[in-house]
Amino acid sequence: MYDLVTFGEAMLRLSPPNFRRLEQTTNFDVQIGGAEMNVAVAASRLGLKTAFVTKLPRNPLGKMVENKSREQGVDTQHILWTDGGRVGIYYLEFGASPRASRVIYDRSGSAISTICSGEIDWKKILGQAGQFHLSGITPALSPSAAETTLEAVKTAREVNCPVSVDLNYRAKLWSQQQANKTMTQIMEYTNLLFTTEEDTQRVFDITAESYEEVAAKLAERFALETVAITLRGNISVWKNTWTAIAYSGGKIYKDKTYELEIVDRVGGGDSFTAGFLYGYLKFDKDIQKAVQYGDAFSALKHSIPGDINWSTLEEVEAQLKGAGLRVVR
Amino acid sequence: MYDLVTFGEAMLRLSPPNFRRLEQTTNFDVQIGGAEMNVAVAASRLGLKTAFVTKLPRNPLGKMVENKSREQGVDTQHILWTDGGRVGIYYLEFGASPRASRVIYDRSGSAISTICSGEIDWKKILGQAGQFHLSGITPALSPSAAETTLEAVKTAREVNCPVSVDLNYRAKLWSQQQANKTMTQIMEYTNLLFTTEEDTQRVFDITAESYEEVAAKLAERFALETVAITLRGNISVWKNTWTAIAYSGGKIYKDKTYELEIVDRVGGGDSFTAGFLYGYLKFDKDIQKAVQYGDAFSALKHSIPGDINWSTLEEVEAQLKGAGLRVVR
Amino acid sequence: MYDLVTFGEAMLRLSPPNFRRLEQTTNFDVQIGGAEMNVAVAASRLGLKTAFVTKLPRNPLGKMVENKSREQGVDTQHILWTDGGRVGIYYLEFGASPRASRVIYDRSGSAISTICSGEIDWKKILGQAGQFHLSGITPALSPSAAETTLEAVKTAREVNCPVSVDLNYRAKLWSQQQANKTMTQIMEYTNLLFTTEEDTQRVFDITAESYEEVAAKLAERFALETVAITLRGNISVWKNTWTAIAYSGGKIYKDKTYELEIVDRVGGGDSFTAGFLYGYLKFDKDIQKAVQYGDAFSALKHSIPGDINWSTLEEVEAQLKGAGLRVVR
Amino acid sequence: MYDLVTFGEAMLRLSPPNFRRLEQTTNFDVQIGGAEMNVAVAASRLGLKTAFVTKLPRNPLGKMVENKSREQGVDTQHILWTDGGRVGIYYLEFGASPRASRVIYDRSGSAISTICSGEIDWKKILGQAGQFHLSGITPALSPSAAETTLEAVKTAREVNCPVSVDLNYRAKLWSQQQANKTMTQIMEYTNLLFTTEEDTQRVFDITAESYEEVAAKLAERFALETVAITLRGNISVWKNTWTAIAYSGGKIYKDKTYELEIVDRVGGGDSFTAGFLYGYLKFDKDIQKAVQYGDAFSALKHSIPGDINWSTLEEVEAQLKGAGLRVVR
Amino acid sequence: MYDLVTFGEAMLRLSPPNFRRLEQTTNFDVQIGGAEMNVAVAASRLGLKTAFVTKLPRNPLGKMVENKSREQGVDTQHILWTDGGRVGIYYLEFGASPRASRVIYDRSGSAISTICSGEIDWKKILGQAGQFHLSGITPALSPSAAETTLEAVKTAREVNCPVSVDLNYRAKLWSQQQANKTMTQIMEYTNLLFTTEEDTQRVFDITAESYEEVAAKLAERFALETVAITLRGNISVWKNTWTAIAYSGGKIYKDKTYELEIVDRVGGGDSFTAGFLYGYLKFDKDIQKAVQYGDAFSALKHSIPGDINWSTLEEVEAQLKGAGLRVVR
Amino acid sequence: MYDLVTFGEAMLRLSPPNFRRLEQTTNFDVQIGGAEMNVAVAASRLGLKTAFVTKLPRNPLGKMVENKSREQGVDTQHILWTDGGRVGIYYLEFGASPRASRVIYDRSGSAISTICSGEIDWKKILGQAGQFHLSGITPALSPSAAETTLEAVKTAREVNCPVSVDLNYRAKLWSQQQANKTMTQIMEYTNLLFTTEEDTQRVFDITAESYEEVAAKLAERFALETVAITLRGNISVWKNTWTAIAYSGGKIYKDKTYELEIVDRVGGGDSFTAGFLYGYLKFDKDIQKAVQYGDAFSALKHSIPGDINWSTLEEVEAQLKGAGLRVVR
Repeated sequence: MYDLVTFGEAMLRLSPPNFRRLEQTTNFDVQIGGAEMNVAVAASRLGLKTAFVTKLPRNPLGKMVENKSREQGVDTQHILWTDGGRVGIYYLEFGASPRASRVIYDRSGSAISTICSGEIDWKKILGQAGQFHLSGITPALSPSAAETTLEAVKTAREVNCPVSVDLNYRAKLWSQQQANKTMTQIMEYTNLLFTTEEDTQRVFDITAESYEEVAAKLAERFALETVAITLRGNISVWKNTWTAIAYSGGKIYKDKTYELEIVDRVGGGDSFTAGFLYGYLKFDKDIQKAVQYGDAFSALKHSIPGDINWSTLEEVEAQLKGAGLRVVR
Repeated sequence: MYDLVTFGEAMLRLSPPNFRRLEQTTNFDVQIGGAEMNVAVAASRLGLKTAFVTKLPRNPLGKMVENKSREQGVDTQHILWTDGGRVGIYYLEFGASPRASRVIYDRSGSAISTICSGEIDWKKILGQAGQFHLSGITPALSPSAAETTLEAVKTAREVNCPVSVDLNYRAKLWSQQQANKTMTQIMEYTNLLFTTEEDTQRVFDITAESYEEVAAKLAERFALETVAITLRGNISVWKNTWTAIAYSGGKIYKDKTYELEIVDRVGGGDSFTAGFLYGYLKFDKDIQKAVQYGDAFSALKHSIPGDINWSTLEEVEAQLKGAGLRVVR
Repeated sequence: MYDLVTFGEAMLRLSPPNFRRLEQTTNFDVQIGGAEMNVAVAASRLGLKTAFVTKLPRNPLGKMVENKSREQGVDTQHILWTDGGRVGIYYLEFGASPRASRVIYDRSGSAISTICSGEIDWKKILGQAGQFHLSGITPALSPSAAETTLEAVKTAREVNCPVSVDLNYRAKLWSQQQANKTMTQIMEYTNLLFTTEEDTQRVFDITAESYEEVAAKLAERFALETVAITLRGNISVWKNTWTAIAYSGGKIYKDKTYELEIVDRVGGGDSFTAGFLYGYLKFDKDIQKAVQYGDAFSALKHSIPGDINWSTLEEVEAQLKGAGLRVVR
Repeated sequence: MYDLVTFGEAMLRLSPPNFRRLEQTTNFDVQIGGAEMNVAVAASRLGLKTAFVTKLPRNPLGKMVENKSREQGVDTQHILWTDGGRVGIYYLEFGASPRASRVIYDRSGSAISTICSGEIDWKKILGQAGQFHLSGITPALSPSAAETTLEAVKTAREVNCPVSVDLNYRAKLWSQQQANKTMTQIMEYTNLLFTTEEDTQRVFDITAESYEEVAAKLAERFALETVAITLRGNISVWKNTWTAIAYSGGKIYKDKTYELEIVDRVGGGDSFTAGFLYGYLKFDKDIQKAVQYGDAFSALKHSIPGDINWSTLEEVEAQLKGAGLRVVR
Repeated sequence: MYDLVTFGEAMLRLSPPNFRRLEQTTNFDVQIGGAEMNVAVAASRLGLKTAFVTKLPRNPLGKMVENKSREQGVDTQHILWTDGGRVGIYYLEFGASPRASRVIYDRSGSAISTICSGEIDWKKILGQAGQFHLSGITPALSPSAAETTLEAVKTAREVNCPVSVDLNYRAKLWSQQQANKTMTQIMEYTNLLFTTEEDTQRVFDITAESYEEVAAKLAERFALETVAITLRGNISVWKNTWTAIAYSGGKIYKDKTYELEIVDRVGGGDSFTAGFLYGYLKFDKDIQKAVQYGDAFSALKHSIPGDINWSTLEEVEAQLKGAGLRVVR
Repeated sequence: MYDLVTFGEAMLRLSPPNFRRLEQTTNFDVQIGGAEMNVAVAASRLGLKTAFVTKLPRNPLGKMVENKSREQGVDTQHILWTDGGRVGIYYLEFGASPRASRVIYDRSGSAISTICSGEIDWKKILGQAGQFHLSGITPALSPSAAETTLEAVKTAREVNCPVSVDLNYRAKLWSQQQANKTMTQIMEYTNLLFTTEEDTQRVFDITAESYEEVAAKLAERFALETVAITLRGNISVWKNTWTAIAYSGGKIYKDKTYELEIVDRVGGGDSFTAGFLYGYLKFDKDIQKAVQYGDAFSALKHSIPGDINWSTLEEVEAQLKGAGLRVVR
């Protein structure tokens, strides 16, 4: 039995150290990351039993994706291995005000983009899962990936496995129309939606006067159980504010706003998802707890290099109790 | 003749670079540090003639402690060498808001914790010293270390060597009751006390409405010549304010507040002690100068990686004159 | 069901980079290693289903031991977690002729040394294991660890799980008499013994004119099914020869001698054990195959930094077929 | 045909990584930099055709200066090679508030300081140049360098090549009187002057109530076409504000103020010059555009390690359009 | 006028430092390399005027290829820039006996593989070139790249620009039959062939009793002016022998054999080509000189990290005169 | 009282890591070294009480020279501090066969080259010294340094302090005639001479059929008590053989030959001197012991990065007893 199964792409992440520009670098820090793997890993760190489903080439880089997942306790037995394709790459360049950080993708031709409906035994996997999660990146990878994603969420519905989706619009992968069409289909099978105001506007053309209204509109249009929205304030590149809200059953849930000194903001949203799902699943759908766990866990993520959130449940709970800034000895 | 002799433990300090978590790291930056060694080294950098007394194992790590002390001009001839024991370790993980930095100690079984009364010829060493300094960590290391510490301060009194103490409460080493009992004994032989409001409350259960009052109460209860208190404001993990006060002869001495961009705050308090003692000893017990030198020297420490304060007397004095933030060419 | 379960200590390994001396270093490369963990990890890489049993403190370093094990697919669910103790450390200094490499242990007080008989449910674990492996280090850690080891091998016998032992004498941990007494008891329950000529002499006082005779004498004295001996030729610190023999059922099995350019020889013997067990278990106790897989796999280990053998089964089999030295493209 | 030719010294820049003090470091990051090379390189990155004139020793460090120039498309064919002299060095120590960053020069005896009038064929080089640029450092290097600089600007006038000068006063190289005398002569041949309020006061003893007045006074006294002044606000060592103004034809041109998170501020002024000259030359002496391009380009420089501005024209223009701080994907 | 123009692919080269396995690494050293770029760069270092023709995407990695070429003085103005495609990658894992070094290519979808006949103005470029060089990799990249290669060599013949080819068979890119067919066509326009015995056998199915005979057969079959063959002896992964022969006008030319301590052997053959072409072009087709310059220059390459040969002409000539192994001061 | 006082220059040593060429590097490893400091430091490590006399600028690099000396226990109180001059630099590029390692000096203008007769109180320093040592580099630094050196050795004779000299000819600093003239004068006051066959030929034009004869001729011509010659065999850049002989009182003393895997050979000769002097001074002028300690200590040096020999007396004595190549645990 899995508490949570996620499905998507994981990539090799290459970033120049010490704020060097990509063009200028002589070496790369190597990490592994990708929205759905990040969620599986982060949820596993909090204590959920998770599995990550993807398709990988049989080579050292494919193995690295598996290694880094199971290093954190994620079950990798459902990964599909292939002799073709590659592990996609994303280059991450850290900025400093007024220069924003930048991501360059080199992911075309990845093994996961060749995934086809029928290759994964969704019934078997989701039949033993408490929650299925994916992001809007997975169906954007290729038409066959979109098809497989739909197959997955439909199967989830069949086997009574609730589905959560992070909208995560990637303009480099598909147009807003394409995203709208596919994501609308997926919404039909979705219980929980994670998103930002900006992505909601781009994919579903929903705007409103407030975050709360956006969430309400989304919940209404797609008959979603719960919609959660993360809110980032970009004071500067190294300093952000961070909070989140959720709309569920006609009510709005909020949390405090964290002041963040940014070490690495990539994966912040995925940590929110993982923390939210932890709170949601552990405390019997307590949305307030879910928002707080998600908010605190993702706040901590911003202080850690790499996509992976190396925080612990104890640290999250210390934040909820109001941890200070003095050295912990 | 030594201007200053200090006595205590020095450890190997291992810290993951680049804000990596301990659990995540693939390498450690190596430093040597410990409250009393930090004071001896820092005072030596300002020009005092200092010696550091400790007990070390005869191995490369023990040698490293000696090396790093004498690299800065500290006299190490009174170090006691043994075939047993180990050099303690402390792991330092740097945080970023809202995650505080964290220290994990692995110091049990250290050579210094096996030190026994009678092993050090205190009369000979302190007979030639202008000041003897230790912190509340030394007696907390073990019962025999507490006994040796008492032996030391009593001998200091006998040979007319003034004693300064940094209260430095470490909850991992002993309980508040134990600390209270031993530190109260040590206070009997103490002239100068360095502390923080928090430690004063935990060890001596002294609280007051203001820092000034706390200092006054301490001076009164233990008949101390001078009490100095450092005051840190945690704006964020990377940004602090820093100042200090002293109470002496019924008067309060203050200094400006420094705004600090934190590179490494460990050893900040030790630098205050060293700077204070420098001003105190060089300017004929001028408490105002002592506070200012201590404050400026410790402000500079926060910008330097490692426990050791690599600043110079010239840099301290430039701060006192109001050094700016433009590049010095 | 596990193909292989191992039991012992894993430590934090700290080594100065670039041939720096320990006393000279400013940073450490961090690895995790220990004879039995090395065997579990290496066997898992070749495809065996393995579990590693140990006792660890609940802190980031304890977690690191678990992480690095499961990163390679080793099952870590039987690890015993405790609030006390520490993760032991070994410092590794790389040499160059005529200076040999050097290991300094700082392992006393480790959590595993506090393990007690009754803390591990051996019947449950070994009841589902095809092979149980440990080295002579485990019982040397403390009297209670020795007791637990005996408990384990006795239980193995009860549940019909064959036992393999790597003699691995550590003079820093116990005397030759102590080792002789305990290891003789353990031999009673042992099927397979891995050793070197030198350790055999030191622990069992067995000498002979040839490696083959040593193996035969060992098999005879302790009624062992098979004895395997690894043979290292130290041409220089960076250049070794490496081969192995086994004695089983009255016959001697040999393999070719590998010429090694040494990157990191630590864990070489453990890789032999893992490779031997792989061949032994996969090919139905074919001792010739076992020696060849062990020999090739450990030869490859010497070219890889860290205790862990990152080679693959394909690479081992390429060696068996006579892989060349040209760049593989 | 060159859009821009610059003339001056380039040095090896050695900086301790990770905020280490110079005295404390065990390694240096290596960069190449120098005011005029920085301008040539930065202008080349924006698309101008540039050449850099200097004198270098025939050794690997001399070659490194050439390499790093032509890596960015700067023409290096007019560099004068010699068997004597050395490449000067500057040590750069990064600070954190309240400790300012610090530069220590070790440049005496450099090859460029031995340059003599007559060694460079200025007529040939400047005859094909749209703009000639140098800073007040070049004539300060030695009397013969001052003579060569005068020869160069006079020839520029002869061949109708406009001259721009960055005042750049270096107190370590010459006195204010010496600077005043030489720079006054050079002003006679200068069209464009780049400076700061502080340098203007030190070299020309010009002060005024506002930056604008300073610029106006300078333009008047030396009959300059345009005077540009950069304005830095030192909020802290890691946080600055940055803007610039220009005075031309009786009018003041201004731009927005950038908030900078400082990665490396060295070369910020040179990037302003390069960006200004780009705007000035590309948009037909449009001073408003010049100020904006200079301001944006130099703001970006502060976020990049090294003297060299690795930004692109696209990034500059994105700033002009109001680029945000969100991750660019 | 160019002495030499080369045409082909340059890739990002990512290699784990310190003999780490690819699967194990946490960072990559970044280099740029590719057979034809390597030749252009290396020849430029010896003093030839060279240009490198390729097709690159407009992004920081494409720019890096251009930068690293022009850093060494190579003319990059004929590079074709595109908005599509990517810069290919090759991962290089360094081995140690008995584990050979390994290259993993991730080059499909590269910009250069989309090059089409008609995109490059060969007449203009080769009309001003003294020599045109490419390797058997270029036509293997894609059918359109093969077509473009043929177009290039035919144009070279038209404009009387001699053509040199390095056979360089890559089994991952095409079959032996495909290679045979295309390379046979290219041979028609080729004057100079660089190859190894093994590639000759694989592409042209030519074998003989000696290297000399292989060279003679090649020259005969394709009416080549000169054939050069490099000969590597793999004593171990870190120790090789290296020499070369050439056949020209019915005569065999030989050189001494170098003993190499290998730092990085990639690009060794390309350096031979560059050194050979230097000797050949500078000394009026003196084949003996060509072989010696090629041999010495490539021997030096093996001691330098990266694809690029940072040796100088002086160092090559010192080898020809018999440079010793003592420290040069 | 000092066992040994040395006098000479110490420099900043900058070396590119990982066999990178100087021209290619992006960072430097930083060390401090110089013949006479190396001897003082190495002798101190073996247990001699030593002082190092030099002249240094008051800046962080000057301080670094002092720090690194006293880190090893060398007395630095006689160092002369000045406001002018610089710390010289030497760049060290590591080679691999067939490319030899290379040193590039950038030492002109150093503070020590400005030293003048009368600046050092030789009578006071050498009056308390058991041995005075310098190399042929010190007088080569400048005419005034030569004068000061002569002043020093004459004073040594006056106060009955024996003098040892390492001939150490540096062609970049002076001609063979200059060296001959000055070193001949110095020989008059010298008791012990350390040299190589090559330097003897270059400075004194002494050649002979054997090393032994060279030593005998030197002893004879200059009436030296003892002459020691080190003998290096350059098998390859990374592999050398190493031994030494001494001639004293008409007898030749020899030692075994060490096979060295070279990590860093710089300072090897200085370690021989230090080891020789240790044996000579500790064992009452036992020349055989002196040669053996010198030989073993310098053999160990070759395995250690940097000029400084971090070996211990225990390690030297283990070599004398025949230490093996197995890992020391």
